[in-house]
Amino acid sequence: MNTLLIVAHGSRREASNQEVRDLARRVEALAGLRVDRVAVGFLELAEPSVAAALEACIAQGAAVVSVFPYFLAAGRHVATDIPAAVEPIRRRHPHVRIDILEHLGAATGLAELIARAADSPEAPTGARAAG
Amino acid sequence: MNTLLIVAHGSRREASNQEVRDLARRVEALAGLRVDRVAVGFLELAEPSVAAALEACIAQGAAVVSVFPYFLAAGRHVATDIPAAVEPIRRRHPHVRIDILEHLGAATGLAELIARAADSPEAPTGARAAG
Repeated sequence: MNTLLIVAHGSRREASNQEVRDLARRVEALAGLRVDRVAVGFLELAEPSVAAALEACIAQGAAVVSVFPYFLAAGRHVATDIPAAVEPIRRRHPHVRIDILEHLGAATGLAELIARAADSPEAPTGARAAG
Repeated sequence: MNTLLIVAHGSRREASNQEVRDLARRVEALAGLRVDRVAVGFLELAEPSVAAALEACIAQGAAVVSVFPYFLAAGRHVATDIPAAVEPIRRRHPHVRIDILEHLGAATGLAELIARAADSPEAPTGARAAG
């Protein structure tokens, strides 16, 4: 079983954590996904932690876990904290392959997504803000 | 002239600010973009500010500016700070249309982007981290 684990920073504002969980459900629902499950883990301020989320994925039968850092910049969280959270789980479960994907800010297609948002023929939401 | 203004939080880590500027250049380079220019503004910790960036867009002839909040969550920065930075510029330049688009975390196609990252047939970058 292949699992995609979206790792977000975590927020004191629960609605922000819920935005990530809702996004995970939308990713999971997409046809053609090679992963069987999409899970969420948080670095700080919200549960589950990255380690707990990885352990849960493995307990549920994941043989491959792809970790997607849901971060805009390649700062300390991406460069250090996520690998540091993953490494003990790798050591504990050497039969499980855990890959860390590019962070969101470097993901293929991000520029295209923003270009499409600007090109959208629909009225932008700013039409409300401008009212 | 139509300008897309990508508004990011801004970071003390200059490389993170440069990631946003590089992204803006990639967005601008995309064919089919209805906007003529892509600019960047920062809420905090980096220059130009949102107000200064908007003024520069207008001085360069923008009749429409679409503001793209480069934020993952609809927290205070998206809900309050960006509209508050935009509003005085709107009042000062009533002939310029300034729209605020959905923030990145709610952008159409984000779930698809993440699903594609997980589905990519290329070796994920985690293959390095796993080595």
